[in-house]
Amino acid sequence: MIIDPKEVATAKLHGYMLSAIAPRPIAFASTIDAEGNANLAPYSFFNAFGSNPATLVFSPARRVRDNTIKHTLENVRQCGEVVINVVDYKMVQQMSLASCEYPAGTSEFVKAGFTPIASEKIKPFRVAESPVQFECKVKDIIETGMEGGAGNLIVCEIVLMHINDQVLGEDGRIDANKIDLVARMGGDWYCRASGDALFTIPKPNEKCGIGFDQLPIEVRTSRYLTGNDLGQLANVERIPEADSAKIESLVLSLSNQYPKESLGSHLHQLAHELLENNRVEDAWQVLQFKF
Amino acid sequence: MIIDPKEVATAKLHGYMLSAIAPRPIAFASTIDAEGNANLAPYSFFNAFGSNPATLVFSPARRVRDNTIKHTLENVRQCGEVVINVVDYKMVQQMSLASCEYPAGTSEFVKAGFTPIASEKIKPFRVAESPVQFECKVKDIIETGMEGGAGNLIVCEIVLMHINDQVLGEDGRIDANKIDLVARMGGDWYCRASGDALFTIPKPNEKCGIGFDQLPIEVRTSRYLTGNDLGQLANVERIPEADSAKIESLVLSLSNQYPKESLGSHLHQLAHELLENNRVEDAWQVLQFKF
Repeated sequence: MIIDPKEVATAKLHGYMLSAIAPRPIAFASTIDAEGNANLAPYSFFNAFGSNPATLVFSPARRVRDNTIKHTLENVRQCGEVVINVVDYKMVQQMSLASCEYPAGTSEFVKAGFTPIASEKIKPFRVAESPVQFECKVKDIIETGMEGGAGNLIVCEIVLMHINDQVLGEDGRIDANKIDLVARMGGDWYCRASGDALFTIPKPNEKCGIGFDQLPIEVRTSRYLTGNDLGQLANVERIPEADSAKIESLVLSLSNQYPKESLGSHLHQLAHELLENNRVEDAWQVLQFKF
Repeated sequence: MIIDPKEVATAKLHGYMLSAIAPRPIAFASTIDAEGNANLAPYSFFNAFGSNPATLVFSPARRVRDNTIKHTLENVRQCGEVVINVVDYKMVQQMSLASCEYPAGTSEFVKAGFTPIASEKIKPFRVAESPVQFECKVKDIIETGMEGGAGNLIVCEIVLMHINDQVLGEDGRIDANKIDLVARMGGDWYCRASGDALFTIPKPNEKCGIGFDQLPIEVRTSRYLTGNDLGQLANVERIPEADSAKIESLVLSLSNQYPKESLGSHLHQLAHELLENNRVEDAWQVLQFKF
């Protein structure tokens, strides 16, 4: 399917973009108007963009429906400050409630049952229930257009970051399993970043992986090895030297069990299983078995 | 824990930001240099920001380690075009491999084993393995600073969007379960948006929910109802009228089983269970049982 943005209705394009660019982190933005009335609203056109200066950008886009703008945008124009609170699973229904379009001056803290606590460096309140709160000064507001669906990039600099101790691990860092973040996807979908959804990939070495072009041809064209398998195999700095004792211990059961003709495919299946368990070194040993 | 960006090392702040602002969608950016050499690199400082004009922003930040910049940034400065490919689970190891810092002029298509296919409106190649590819023109590059960690906002306008039919549902929309996207978190962590990680919350009505302030006090202060429970209950446009037949069918087993003194807590536990299954109307009926 091909979509030309100039040739489809904005609402339709919008829907496809939201489903394809996901999961998106959520900025639960707390602002105040010139009279000091608190406002709270979630935005998923949001991310970090640099750490020096510590830069967050979120976009209260002009509504596709009727080209109106959000109170958050009016408030940051008036006051130039915002607290961006992150959203975890235990507060997600209340956050969704806060996205109702209550009249100006209505506090979503009251309506959605959140606890406002004072910030240290700026006027808007923090959300006590949020595990991480960023006090931010607005550096710039970039309007990308004036029609419904146009983005308004609110470029923020973090002036103070608050982290609830309960999401820290013993090493003093944020523990991905403890913080239990949620993110926005297309339609009514959300993603909860916890449990089986989490996995790790060791960062590539500063020394580069050998790459696909250096994989032996029978490995690269194997019917049994997936793209993820080959990606792991090609990420070693050099192919490990064959270690006959190791190879024997890994493939002994196979070489006793299967005739030589079918052994090759079984070796590749074994390598695949090892790679599914991140045992890259062992997989390379298996793949170097000599008949 | 409180972190003042002016008082900590950038690398430390960077780490906390990456763990708190997550999961982040991944822009797998394909560019070419002035000589036509292809480059491919993943960026998680990325999101959509508006649909009219269709705006994507990603940031190849200056490296915190040594304040060098990425080939992607040099290439978009030279050529002003980029294909942003989304990343699904089956290509995540190869994507990680493409983040190795190969010398300029080395094609990560070759090194990470991806298939380049021609774009229709711009010069850089698309990644055939990616389920959704955005051909983009670069509208602006905003430098937020000149030191290590500074962001470079590459503001892009989508000129053509390609969607692999295999991720579409029968309704012609992208199916969250089929597209199987991955997102970046802190440290070595990733999040796979599939299976149990996915959940839905119906968008609030245009008519607003009643809000926490309209919840009966015994509901709002219940020991058995969580914030997520109360968020669902407060999201109704009005409290449903008590329906004695419905109430009886829901609570009959409880009222036979427990003495009147402890019935209240069991009713709240039942309401909690119903809300865990999104049965908001039934939960409201249970909560209106009159002793």
